[in-house]
Amino acid sequence: MEKDKKQEEIQKARHSLAHILAKALTTLYPKTKLTIGPSIDDGFYYDIDLDINLTPDHFPEIEKKMKEIINKGEDFTRKVVSKDEALKLFKGNEYKTEIINELPENEEVSLYYTGDDFFDLCRGPHVESAKKLQNYAYKIHAVNGAYWRGSEKNKMLQRVYVYAYPDKKQLAEHINMIEEAKKRDHNKLGRELGFFTTVDYIGQGLPILLPKGARVIQILQRFVEDEEQKRGWQLTKTPFMAKSDLYKISGHWDHYKDGMFVLGDEKKDKEVYALRPMTCPFQYQAYLNKARSYKDLPLRYNETSTLFRNEASGEMHGLIRVRQFTISEGHLMCTPEQLEDEFKGCLELANFMLKTLGLYEDTSYRFSQWDPNDKEKYIGTKEQWDEAQNAMEKILKDLNIPYEIGIGEAAFYGPKLDIQIKNVYGKEDTLITIQIDQMLAEKFGMVYTDKDGNKKNPYIIHRTSIGCYERTLAYLIEKYAGVFPLWLSPEQVRVLSLTERNSDYVNEIVSTLRENGLRAESDNRNEKIGYKIREALNEKVPYLIIVGDEEEKNKTISIRGRGYENKSGLNLNDFIARLKEEIRTKKI
Amino acid sequence: MEKDKKQEEIQKARHSLAHILAKALTTLYPKTKLTIGPSIDDGFYYDIDLDINLTPDHFPEIEKKMKEIINKGEDFTRKVVSKDEALKLFKGNEYKTEIINELPENEEVSLYYTGDDFFDLCRGPHVESAKKLQNYAYKIHAVNGAYWRGSEKNKMLQRVYVYAYPDKKQLAEHINMIEEAKKRDHNKLGRELGFFTTVDYIGQGLPILLPKGARVIQILQRFVEDEEQKRGWQLTKTPFMAKSDLYKISGHWDHYKDGMFVLGDEKKDKEVYALRPMTCPFQYQAYLNKARSYKDLPLRYNETSTLFRNEASGEMHGLIRVRQFTISEGHLMCTPEQLEDEFKGCLELANFMLKTLGLYEDTSYRFSQWDPNDKEKYIGTKEQWDEAQNAMEKILKDLNIPYEIGIGEAAFYGPKLDIQIKNVYGKEDTLITIQIDQMLAEKFGMVYTDKDGNKKNPYIIHRTSIGCYERTLAYLIEKYAGVFPLWLSPEQVRVLSLTERNSDYVNEIVSTLRENGLRAESDNRNEKIGYKIREALNEKVPYLIIVGDEEEKNKTISIRGRGYENKSGLNLNDFIARLKEEIRTKKI
Repeated sequence: MEKDKKQEEIQKARHSLAHILAKALTTLYPKTKLTIGPSIDDGFYYDIDLDINLTPDHFPEIEKKMKEIINKGEDFTRKVVSKDEALKLFKGNEYKTEIINELPENEEVSLYYTGDDFFDLCRGPHVESAKKLQNYAYKIHAVNGAYWRGSEKNKMLQRVYVYAYPDKKQLAEHINMIEEAKKRDHNKLGRELGFFTTVDYIGQGLPILLPKGARVIQILQRFVEDEEQKRGWQLTKTPFMAKSDLYKISGHWDHYKDGMFVLGDEKKDKEVYALRPMTCPFQYQAYLNKARSYKDLPLRYNETSTLFRNEASGEMHGLIRVRQFTISEGHLMCTPEQLEDEFKGCLELANFMLKTLGLYEDTSYRFSQWDPNDKEKYIGTKEQWDEAQNAMEKILKDLNIPYEIGIGEAAFYGPKLDIQIKNVYGKEDTLITIQIDQMLAEKFGMVYTDKDGNKKNPYIIHRTSIGCYERTLAYLIEKYAGVFPLWLSPEQVRVLSLTERNSDYVNEIVSTLRENGLRAESDNRNEKIGYKIREALNEKVPYLIIVGDEEEKNKTISIRGRGYENKSGLNLNDFIARLKEEIRTKKI
Repeated sequence: MEKDKKQEEIQKARHSLAHILAKALTTLYPKTKLTIGPSIDDGFYYDIDLDINLTPDHFPEIEKKMKEIINKGEDFTRKVVSKDEALKLFKGNEYKTEIINELPENEEVSLYYTGDDFFDLCRGPHVESAKKLQNYAYKIHAVNGAYWRGSEKNKMLQRVYVYAYPDKKQLAEHINMIEEAKKRDHNKLGRELGFFTTVDYIGQGLPILLPKGARVIQILQRFVEDEEQKRGWQLTKTPFMAKSDLYKISGHWDHYKDGMFVLGDEKKDKEVYALRPMTCPFQYQAYLNKARSYKDLPLRYNETSTLFRNEASGEMHGLIRVRQFTISEGHLMCTPEQLEDEFKGCLELANFMLKTLGLYEDTSYRFSQWDPNDKEKYIGTKEQWDEAQNAMEKILKDLNIPYEIGIGEAAFYGPKLDIQIKNVYGKEDTLITIQIDQMLAEKFGMVYTDKDGNKKNPYIIHRTSIGCYERTLAYLIEKYAGVFPLWLSPEQVRVLSLTERNSDYVNEIVSTLRENGLRAESDNRNEKIGYKIREALNEKVPYLIIVGDEEEKNKTISIRGRGYENKSGLNLNDFIARLKEEIRTKKI
C-alpha cells in the first residue's frame, strides 16, 4: 500500500514533467501540435506533430528549456471549461479537437495551466507546483515515429521519450541498467553475433535466421520432439493455410480475423484462404481421422508448427514479436477424469524445458481468464467459462502454484495458464501457455464413445512445451549474453593455429572433433594469435584449442574456455570426453 | 523409327475411336455437345457437355453402341468447308463455335465424317475406315469433371476416359498393370495406412500429415540436414513471405506471379505480401549479411524450406502435386572456377540420397533449357543463356551423364538438370533439380571481392538434395507398397501378447526396445493372436515379436518379419543388435 502510494506520486510527477516538456517544446518550436503525453514505467513520453525532425542534437536545448521552466516554480492549476470553449482554445490542433469531440455531449472539459502562458487538455492529477519537480532528474533519450492513435492509416507523429526519476541517483541507476541491458539485448547482440537479420524489402517481423540462429533452433527442435515422443506425444505436420470455411467453424473468422493474413476477397473470390494464426483446427483433423473410443484417450499430438499473425507495424520487436514464428505446438484430447493428470503432465514438461534451458527462475505464472463483458472477443456461455475456469483453478490449487490473475487475457475459447518472462528491459511477455478448452471439440464434431456407449466431446488441452522457438532464442541470447551452454552453442570449439606450420595439425584436430559429433571450426589464418583469440571470444565460442609447434610435437593441445584458463599439455581425447559429458548433461 | 511409326498408327486409331465414341454418345444422348477428344498414352478421352451425369452404369450401353458403329465398317472421310459454313454446321455448340472463331480469318475448316450421319470438327489424321478398328480393344474406365479449356472460370464438362489397345491381350495387360498400380498408389495406400489425409474445408493440395507420415518426414529431414552439414552446408531458416518489393527485384513478380499466393491488393494496400514459391531470394540474404571475398567461397546454404504454389484445382494429386510443400532447399555461391566441382558435389549428394532411399534405379536425367521464343517466361539475354547452358552442357558431358533435353523447361533465371521419376501409373515428374544461375546475383547486388580486388557476381547453384519431402514420401510409399526400410518405418516393432497373462512381459520388452532407440508399440488387446498378427501385417509393421507363457518362462521371444519366418526361442538382445545394424546401414 505504502509502495503503491509512492508509485502514484512518482507517476503524478512524471505526468507533470510531460506538461513541462510540452511547454518547453511549444516555446522552442511554436508550430508544435501537442497530442498526448502519458507517464510510463521509467518516465513519460509526449507525441507531437512537428515539421522539424527532432534528433539527439536537439535534446540538450529542450532539457535546458525544461530546467528553466521548472526553476520558475510555477503552479499547476486546473480550469474547467465547456466543450465549445475547449474547441476554441485548441482550434488548429486537429488531435485535441478529435479528443474533445469524442467526449460525451454535456461533459465539461478539464485543462491544466502551468503558469499563465501554457495550458494543456488534461484530466490530471498533477503536482501543485513545479517546485515539487526541482529535485527530479530526467533525460530525453529517444525520439521514435508513432502513428496517431496507433493506426497506420493516420499521420506518423514524433514520440519524445524521457526517463524521469525522483533524484539523480535513481536516474543514473536506471541509465546504467539500460546500458547493461543493451549489451544483452537480443535485437542488438543477436544481430552482431550473426544469429539473425531483417531486411526492409522482405518486411517487418519476418526475421531471417542466419546459420547460427538456425542451428540453435534445429538443436532445440530435435530436443523438444524427442522429449515429447518419450512422453507419448505423436507428431503431426499440418498445412499452414486453409479455406475460410475452417475458420468459420472454429470461430477464428468471427473472433480473430483482424490478427490473420487473408488471401483473397470474400466479395470477389470463390475460395478465400487464410494463413493460420493457431494450429488447433488443423491438428484436430488427426483426431477426426478415425472413430475414437474412451480407450484411445488421452491422445496427444505435437507439431513443430509455423504460425502467422498480422501484428501491427509498431508492435514488432526483434525475435520476440514477429509476424511468422515456429512453435512447439500441441493438442491433447482427454476425458474429464484425465484432465487434471494431463494438465499436470503438460506443466511438468514445460517446466522441464525451462529448467533445462536455465530460464525457469526468470518466469512467473498468470491465470488468464475471460472478460464476461467482452462479448466480441469470447465465444461460449458463462456456464461453460465457469466450468473450464473452475477446473483450471482447482488444478492450480492442487499443484499449489502461485499465480496472478489476468482478466480478459484468456483465449477466445478458454482459460490459460501463461508462463510469463521479462526481457532485459523488464518488458513482460508470455513464453509458454497451457489452455483448457471445452468448446472447440463440439464445434468440430470431435467425439469419443464412452464406457456407457454414449458419444461425448473430449476436453482439449492446448499447450506449448518450449514456446515459440524464435522468442525462446531471443530470451536465451539475453539470458546468456550470447555465451550459450555448450549443448546449444552453434559453434562449440574453434581450433587456432599458432603459426602457419600448424594448420595440418589443426585440421586433424577439427576432423577428430567432428567425428565425435562436435561442432568445430578451424582458424588457420595468418594473423597474430591474440587477434584470433579475441575474435573467437567476441563471437562467444565456448572453447578454443590453440596449437603450435610444441603441441604438435607432443601431440597435445592448449585450451581456453570454461574452467580452463590457458591450460596446456592436455590430451585431446580427455578433452573430448569432458565436452561430451557437458553436452550429455546439458550443463547450463 | 519403326517403333515411332507403330506408335503413330496406334494414336491415329485411338483418335478415330474417339470419333466413334462421339458418334455413340450423340446417338444415345442427342443433347450431347461435343468439345475435344484427343488420344493419350493409354487410349483417349472426350470432353462433353451433357445434362445427364454419366456413371459406370452407362458404360456398357455406350461400349455396345460403339461396337455397333465399328461393325458397320463405315469410312472416315475428310471434308473442307469455309468458316461460315462450319459455324452454321455447329450452330448451338458454343465450344466448337469458339474453336472455329479462333481460326485465322481465311482458313478453311476440316471436318471428318464417320458414315453419312456423323461429322466432327477435326484436323485428323484418321484411319480410312472403321473396319481398321475391328480388332481394337477398348474400355471406358472413368468419367471425371474437367473445366472447358482447363479454367475454373468456365463450365465444368464431363471427361470420358477410355483405354484403347490394338488387341484384347494388350488391353488386359494394361488393365492388370493399373490394378497392380492401384495397390501401390500412394494416394490410396497412403491414406489407408494413415500417412496422410485431406479435408474438404481445409482445401485441395493441402495434405494433413498424420503421425506416421510426419514421422517419416522427420526421419528424412534429420538425415538430410545431418548429411548436408557433413558436406559443408550451413543451415538457414528464412521467412515464408515477403513484400512484393522482394519479388520485383528477383523477377518473380513479372515472371511467376500467377503461381504465387498474394496477400493484399496492389491498388488498395500500402504493402502487398506474397507467400514464397521458391527460397532463392530469401536465402541470398544470408550471403548479403556480410561483405564477401573470394576466400569465403564457395558458400553453401541449406534449408528445410516450406514453399507455396498456387496450382490449379485440376492439377492437385495426393502428396505429389500440392499447394504447400517442404523441400530440402539449397543455394550455393561460387566463383566460375569452382562451378564444375560444386555442381558435381550437388549431383553426388542427390544421387547419394536417391541410392540410400532405393529410388536411384527409377530415375532419369533431363537437361531443361530455355525457349528463346518465350519472352514472357524468361529473363536475361541470349548471351547469358548460352553461357549458363554451355557451362551446364560441359559439366554433363564431363560427367558422362545420359540425358534428354527439355526445351522451355528451364527456370525463368537459368537452365536445370532435372532428375525425373515416374509414379505407379507411369506419369513422370521432377523429383530433384540442380540449376545454374548467373543472373540473380546481379539483381540482388551479391558480389565478392576477387583476387584482383574487383567486385564480381558469384555463380549461384540452386539445388535440392532429396526433393520435396511430401513428394519423396509419396514415391517411397509406391516403391515399397508401404513396407518401408526399417530405418524409415514409423513403427519398427510391434510386441503382441499371446494371452492377457503376458502383457507385463510385453510391456517390459517394449520398454527395452524404446530404451534402445527403437520405435516399438505393444498390442495387449484381448483378441485372437491371428487377428492381431494380421492387423500388424496389414499396417506394414516390419517386425512382430510374439510372446506367450513359454517365451515368458524362458525369457525368450518369437519373431515374424524380414528373414524370420516364425522363429522362436530367440534372445531379445541379439535381435535388438540385428535391428540396430539394419538401421545403421539404412538397409533397403
